[in-house]
Order: sequence, then C-alpha cells, then structure tokens
Amino acid sequence: MPYIELESHLPGITGLLEYRKDSAQPIRDLTQLLLRGPSTLSEADRELIATVVSHGNQCTFCTTAHTAAADLLIGDHQTAQQVKQDIETAPVSEKMKALLTIAKLTGQSGKNVTAEVIERAKAAGATDIEIHDTVLIAALFCLYNRYVDGLATALPDNLGYYDVLADRIVNHGYTRLPQGYDHLKK
Amino acid sequence: MPYIELESHLPGITGLLEYRKDSAQPIRDLTQLLLRGPSTLSEADRELIATVVSHGNQCTFCTTAHTAAADLLIGDHQTAQQVKQDIETAPVSEKMKALLTIAKLTGQSGKNVTAEVIERAKAAGATDIEIHDTVLIAALFCLYNRYVDGLATALPDNLGYYDVLADRIVNHGYTRLPQGYDHLKK
Repeated sequence: MPYIELESHLPGITGLLEYRKDSAQPIRDLTQLLLRGPSTLSEADRELIATVVSHGNQCTFCTTAHTAAADLLIGDHQTAQQVKQDIETAPVSEKMKALLTIAKLTGQSGKNVTAEVIERAKAAGATDIEIHDTVLIAALFCLYNRYVDGLATALPDNLGYYDVLADRIVNHGYTRLPQGYDHLKK
Repeated sequence: MPYIELESHLPGITGLLEYRKDSAQPIRDLTQLLLRGPSTLSEADRELIATVVSHGNQCTFCTTAHTAAADLLIGDHQTAQQVKQDIETAPVSEKMKALLTIAKLTGQSGKNVTAEVIERAKAAGATDIEIHDTVLIAALFCLYNRYVDGLATALPDNLGYYDVLADRIVNHGYTRLPQGYDHLKK
C-alpha cells in the first residue's frame, strides 16, 4: 500500500506524476531532454544508464521499466541483463563500460566517482558533455528511485505492463500520456 | 579540479547550471516550486529538509549553502546545526521531527522509509501532500548532491560566499541569477 493516497490503477512513478502534476512537469521535461534530446549517446545507451542506477538502488519498478525500454531499443533481452550483472563483460563499447561505471558509482554517492574512472572514460573517447550527462542522468534516477520507493508505490499486477510502458517511452518519450494509452493501467 | 571544464569562478552547483542551461531550467523550476511554491511547510522547513539530506550525503557545498539559507530564514544559527546533529533533540515541532526523519531515510534509500515513520508523521498532523513533498524534496537533493560531487565541482574560496548565496536564494529563489548578482563568485 502506498504511504499516500494515489490512484490505485497507476503503479510506480505513474501515480506520483498524476498526484502532483505541477511538480511532474519539470521532472518530465528534464527526463525528456536528457533521455530523448539531442546527444551523442544513443537512446539505448541512456536507458542503460537509467537501468544500471535503478538496479543499484534496488528499485524494482524503475529497473524493470528501463530494462524493458533498453531491450526494445537494442532489440535483445541480453544486453541490459548483462549490464546489470557485470558491466565489464557486457556487450557494450569500452566507452560505455566506463560511462556505466561512472553512473553506477554516482548512484552510490557522488563522492564515489574517482578521477581514475573519469580518465578511463576520456581515454575511451568520452567527451565532457557525455560525462556530464551520464552523471546527471544517474543523479536523476536517484531522484526517481527514491520518489518511487520512498512513498511505497505499488508494482503492476502483471509483467506485461512493462512492455506497454516501454513501448510508450520508446515511441512517445517522457511527456504526458497521449490519448489512446488509457490501457496503460496495472 | 572538476572532472569537466566549468567556469572557474562558479563553484558547486552554480557552474553546472551554467554549463548546460537547457537541463538547468527544469531543475531550477522544480526547486523553485518545491522550496518556494505554495505549501503548508514553511520555506525554513523545506530548507531544513534540503540541509538534512545534503548532510547525510556528505555534500559540503549543498549542506553549507542550505544551512545558510535555513539560518537566514529562521534567524538563528542553532536550529539547522542541531537538526544535522540529532533531529530528536532539535528545536522543531514533532511533525517536523517526523518529516525530517522521513527525509533523512529517503536520502539513504527510498526503501528505508518505513510505515512506522510515516505513521508518526501522520499522527503528528502531517498531510499526504506534506509527506509527498518531503520525499520529493529529499529525492531532489539526492540528485543535486550527486550532480555536485559526481563531477567534483569546486568549493568557494571563502565562507562568505555562502551568505551571499543564501541571501540570493532566500530573497530571489532558485530562478536564474538576476542582474546585480555578478558578485556571486567564489
């Protein structure tokens, strides 16, 4: 049971974004910009960053949702799974291994991000803006994970929910739910 | 030395908000709404939430800045200090003790917020929206703390900086730096 009264058919973050729409707007705007805006990191790369941070924070709703989004963008179910298990052996570039490690460390604490891991990312070709965005996306998902779990939001009743949600955030982004998605209920 | 190239006269969050202005805008908007918008929690209460979370995350820049803002709003230097040391013996209401405890736990992990501490807050008169806003402000400062420390931003050269910053955020809020504040440099 969530700690505050939320619409019971809206699990995880979705009920919170409806609960207070004025605070939801800048959260949606920031997410849309960072995960779907112009970037030299692919949308899949950015969903993997969201996934690895949510996994580190043990946030079931966010981890499952962004794993599903990454899977849909990548076209397989292995990559995100392997990134969650062990970044070093996952089938991603050396640059992405370094950036995902930065994201994972940021998720633990900003103070855990070392000069060494930044150097590794730069040596693998990461630019300042890519490092910036990696840290900020990781920080944003620390916000989401705490918001979702700190208020004890509900999980969806069935796992098919996450595929519908992934379809939405891959094909429509993080802006408000468009018409026709009324079936996005748990 | 920050991990990415930032304007050297802008310490902590201030250089980051200038580095990428398009992502800064929704962060500023969310902060302004949650910390300065209409609420049954006072601005001082909300700055104490920011302070206790930043302190828990050991983020020196954010802790010092929001302590200074809370001090200015409250009119003393003891309250914020005592809140950081021990919420239970700090000179705040029973409701604020419960909300600050929720904030502190959210800062550690959303999963650390227990039904018991929520019950304590409700028994002391906290409303759903106050509990919601406490968790979201705490989550937002987890974003800030990781953004500031994950990129190894610089501290100001002198402590007087924080008084100028506190004056700004108390009297002008979290929107973009107005004209005449060009002296807000480290």
